[in-house]
Amino acid sequence: MRGAEIFVATQRPNQLYLLAGAQHEDPSCVISRGTCAAILFHHRGGEVAETVVFPGIWISNACRDLLHDCEVVENGLSDPTAEEQLAHRLASMAPRRVLFDQLSDSLGQSIAKVAPSIELVVDDFVTTLLRRCKDEADLVGLKRAAQVADLGMQTAFANVRPGVSCADAIAVGTAAMLAAGAESVAMAPASGIGTGYLDSGEDPRRRIEEGDMVFIDMGIWVHGYLGDMTRAAIVGTGSAEQQDLLATVQEAYQRSSSLMVPGARGEEIYQTVVDLYAPKGWAPYFVHHLSHGLGLGGDVPRVAADHAEILHVGDALSCEPGCYIPGLGGARVENMIYVGDSGPVELTKTPIDPELAS
Amino acid sequence: MRGAEIFVATQRPNQLYLLAGAQHEDPSCVISRGTCAAILFHHRGGEVAETVVFPGIWISNACRDLLHDCEVVENGLSDPTAEEQLAHRLASMAPRRVLFDQLSDSLGQSIAKVAPSIELVVDDFVTTLLRRCKDEADLVGLKRAAQVADLGMQTAFANVRPGVSCADAIAVGTAAMLAAGAESVAMAPASGIGTGYLDSGEDPRRRIEEGDMVFIDMGIWVHGYLGDMTRAAIVGTGSAEQQDLLATVQEAYQRSSSLMVPGARGEEIYQTVVDLYAPKGWAPYFVHHLSHGLGLGGDVPRVAADHAEILHVGDALSCEPGCYIPGLGGARVENMIYVGDSGPVELTKTPIDPELAS
Repeated sequence: MRGAEIFVATQRPNQLYLLAGAQHEDPSCVISRGTCAAILFHHRGGEVAETVVFPGIWISNACRDLLHDCEVVENGLSDPTAEEQLAHRLASMAPRRVLFDQLSDSLGQSIAKVAPSIELVVDDFVTTLLRRCKDEADLVGLKRAAQVADLGMQTAFANVRPGVSCADAIAVGTAAMLAAGAESVAMAPASGIGTGYLDSGEDPRRRIEEGDMVFIDMGIWVHGYLGDMTRAAIVGTGSAEQQDLLATVQEAYQRSSSLMVPGARGEEIYQTVVDLYAPKGWAPYFVHHLSHGLGLGGDVPRVAADHAEILHVGDALSCEPGCYIPGLGGARVENMIYVGDSGPVELTKTPIDPELAS
Repeated sequence: MRGAEIFVATQRPNQLYLLAGAQHEDPSCVISRGTCAAILFHHRGGEVAETVVFPGIWISNACRDLLHDCEVVENGLSDPTAEEQLAHRLASMAPRRVLFDQLSDSLGQSIAKVAPSIELVVDDFVTTLLRRCKDEADLVGLKRAAQVADLGMQTAFANVRPGVSCADAIAVGTAAMLAAGAESVAMAPASGIGTGYLDSGEDPRRRIEEGDMVFIDMGIWVHGYLGDMTRAAIVGTGSAEQQDLLATVQEAYQRSSSLMVPGARGEEIYQTVVDLYAPKGWAPYFVHHLSHGLGLGGDVPRVAADHAEILHVGDALSCEPGCYIPGLGGARVENMIYVGDSGPVELTKTPIDPELAS
């Protein structure tokens, strides 16, 4: 650890990752939001010898009673802030160097005040190295999250028909995911109908009409892991141009996801999508990233036009080509992918053409 | 406007507020997230003579087709960023001074590069002055949001009984709110059972048992406005101490909300709650604010221990005293309040004791 025997995790995804297993079977329900100021991991001889949680007042009780094999520092109304308590603890431990995943100005100042000689080093190797390579426990979490997302998307599209709105379909899809065990919604859902605007869409409350193109993107947290997917469809037969757009985006997904093998270059995967759109004049309408990382939050790798990246075994990432053509419609297909030894594994199971209401 | 004839709104709540009415009946469905870089309002003779929207690529199409009585600057893949386009527009207009609600480093640098002589002033009077005093349209939005929140909370508590979890109850409550027209969930719901931890709660998936104290806090966006409320209850009869805790928190709500009249001092309202808890030794367990502002987001006024504030006619704010006692339980009651000429008006209509499953 770059010569440091103490690592301080201030970011919730890293805290969840490092607490998992020993201290609690599902730390996401204890460290419930970004309200845990810091968790200190003290290493001796390559092992974590001591874990100290500085929970902040909002989750102090929960951490004290539910986390095991670690010290939870009390935090009540009359106590110093969790950051100040961390600073004093570090001062008493008197290490030469402490490693942080992130270090806010206020925390840095608190420490400098009481322990100015400690060298503070920032290196988020937990996100970029440890959490990037998914282990068995991660895969269990990712698969469960993908399963809940599948259920939500199938439920949403089973309600897509003329006369209802995307908002209606999203409502029942979200309900299905929450009922299936998701703890909270990860983001405002995106949907598009009519001319299929990216992200915003037309008013999601507009009623779907025969011949509309529809896409729905929903994300959800399940035991701390992100479940995230998108499907697109035409309500009714649609025009030849709409059919071409949908088929092309689906083909873009197939081509780009099939390239997600160990050692693949992100720019080349991205370019595959652009190359498919370009002959039709659609390259200007693929304006977003192809992939974001998957896991406990803020994950790598990212695959985008402006981002160079090599894929590794153990990566988990979305694959979500889209195309949004003014006056014609918009489509996006998004699956969750795990990069295994022998290539991409689709964690998302819903067919690429979802079943619509009959 | 502090000597400026141009005001630039970079914050979504302010953009929605200033666009409402003339340009779109419900701008929240067009400016769908925080993805609109800026909207420029050019004043002449006290009137807005020109409105220019710099939408960013994600919502460019939607803004172009759905916003009226304003100019929407094109934003495609090959265009400069919305911030750069704004900077060039300001350079061509050559004003002496421009007012911003917020000014990011990158936007400030973009403008300084092409128009170094323009004085850039930051003053978020839209949030602190204009949006603070609710008008008729705001009240319509707030009441609709409160109504949807009421429906969700009643639905959630109608499912609270031994054997189900808070997560189950929240799932059906959220579904009801989305089905009733909420566009998205505003925050991860908070709930507590058992020893009633603040915010985190025990695992929200733990099944409720006879004698548990339960509270549920859910927030939702409805046509851009926040709907937000909390209810607490005992499942079954509970102990005398639990009954006292619940009754005391409800009394704290009644006392503090009754003081929300024009001219009231926030510290005194907050202190009323503390004074009620203190004789029982519970003052250390009310660790959060009493009120946040309500409206399109990021609203004032705030009422908290560390915050001095005078209430005005037209204010809209939550009133949410809580108390979370280790080993006993937790309770929180939250209603949406409008400060009218003759005192507080409860926008939330659900009875303080919600109906539980029978």
